[in-house]
Amino acid sequence: MTSRRAILCNGEATAQLPVDDRGAALGDGLFETILVRLGQCIWLDEHLTRLAGGCTRLGLDFPRRELERDIAALLGNSPAADYAVLRISLSRKSAGLRGYAPATGDCNRLLQIAGTPAPNHDHWRSGIHSYLCKTRLPEGAATAGIKHNNRLAHVMARAERPVTDFPEGLMLSHNGLVIEGVSSNVFLVVGSTLVTPALDTAGVVGVVRQKILAQAQSLGMPQVVRRVELPELYRAQEMFFCNSLIGIWPVRALDCLRFSSFELTRKLQSQLEAVWYA
Amino acid sequence: MTSRRAILCNGEATAQLPVDDRGAALGDGLFETILVRLGQCIWLDEHLTRLAGGCTRLGLDFPRRELERDIAALLGNSPAADYAVLRISLSRKSAGLRGYAPATGDCNRLLQIAGTPAPNHDHWRSGIHSYLCKTRLPEGAATAGIKHNNRLAHVMARAERPVTDFPEGLMLSHNGLVIEGVSSNVFLVVGSTLVTPALDTAGVVGVVRQKILAQAQSLGMPQVVRRVELPELYRAQEMFFCNSLIGIWPVRALDCLRFSSFELTRKLQSQLEAVWYA
Repeated sequence: MTSRRAILCNGEATAQLPVDDRGAALGDGLFETILVRLGQCIWLDEHLTRLAGGCTRLGLDFPRRELERDIAALLGNSPAADYAVLRISLSRKSAGLRGYAPATGDCNRLLQIAGTPAPNHDHWRSGIHSYLCKTRLPEGAATAGIKHNNRLAHVMARAERPVTDFPEGLMLSHNGLVIEGVSSNVFLVVGSTLVTPALDTAGVVGVVRQKILAQAQSLGMPQVVRRVELPELYRAQEMFFCNSLIGIWPVRALDCLRFSSFELTRKLQSQLEAVWYA
Repeated sequence: MTSRRAILCNGEATAQLPVDDRGAALGDGLFETILVRLGQCIWLDEHLTRLAGGCTRLGLDFPRRELERDIAALLGNSPAADYAVLRISLSRKSAGLRGYAPATGDCNRLLQIAGTPAPNHDHWRSGIHSYLCKTRLPEGAATAGIKHNNRLAHVMARAERPVTDFPEGLMLSHNGLVIEGVSSNVFLVVGSTLVTPALDTAGVVGVVRQKILAQAQSLGMPQVVRRVELPELYRAQEMFFCNSLIGIWPVRALDCLRFSSFELTRKLQSQLEAVWYA
């Protein structure tokens, strides 16, 4: 495992960003966080497809060829760690203009790769103690679903509890809908149906969320994507969080609410375990 | 007037930002945009007070002494333009940590000053044609009121219409409340009462908004800060936008809705005109 961080900004090995970057100034940007195992990006196509979709929403030009070149260069130059994380961010160039008006679809590309410990297998196996965040997600259709970098509410939510004791928190939207974990998507099992919140007014459509929905489909599990209100948690038999880095974390407890069934969660874990632990 | 831009990042004249800046990565930052006339910042104390309040909300250390030193250095080194704009941004340092958790209250300070044309006196005198933005503001209490840099919805709203024909747009929140202009606050006159939206779930508490409320108070104008629903615009006699750079722009029309009274707006303009045009 390497903990050395390798960086490419617009194709150059530099630890600096242009000072007029609109990602920094106005949050006018997107990012992806990708698991890398033994030098191979996991689900790279899916991440790039989501990034391209975000670009379409924001009117940014998606620099596919440049990104592929950057990624090849970064992976080629880094020792193939057991586990590493590749962060890609795209942010609009200012083109000399001040103010909110976007003058161009041209992006600054920032790619960083760094070694990381293996995903926490204890959390995977034994589940976690989660909490309901006091900080709510701003709710708005314009920016929902995409992985933009307007993440202040997530930062504030993460600061509510020590990560060591409470490795993930559940976030509601401004209007009180259940949306996601601070850095993950959330699933419930209600009756024998897999339920995950609709993300049309807040939240990030996660790559692993989509993989799990596909997996459930192929296993013949009933599933539904819809609005989820908080009281529904009391009717749920199972709950888990998922993302590209952690995999699937069963929830043993959400504050005082206990979950003792993990049946469907285990089924989904066993289908996907090789991605994180093979 | 100079159009040369002078920059200080953490006290040094550089056009680069540290690549791990959390403002760029996660929108973990704040900014101020301050009018500078003949080398003097207008309402500097009020801007710094708002910035300090934002720091308190986000758990950032407010570097007052460093900012005052930076500002003095920038103003001392720049030719005293008739009009200039000083942009201050504070963004959290990463302290080597990845992910949302804020590891420190330490900030990167980025200050930029650039000459700018005089505020549009035609808009001030004759009013503007405004539009109702399709893009709505994300609604959430955690980040409301402060001038953070999670401004993607503003960027999208600004892109809806050409700034030359429609210099300002009116934004609603996700739930349909009237909140603010894309880069300004909004006031209505309903009956003989000055009304401006409460900003407890979205919007920025503007420095000029506060000055206008104080001015109205001293003129004995009835005033109220409260939730404003869209249909109320049809009952309003007057409407105007305001911010630190433009001053006060009366609204002649919002899409098809015409305003023909400007009586209270003119009174407020005459009290404050010297700030922008003396």
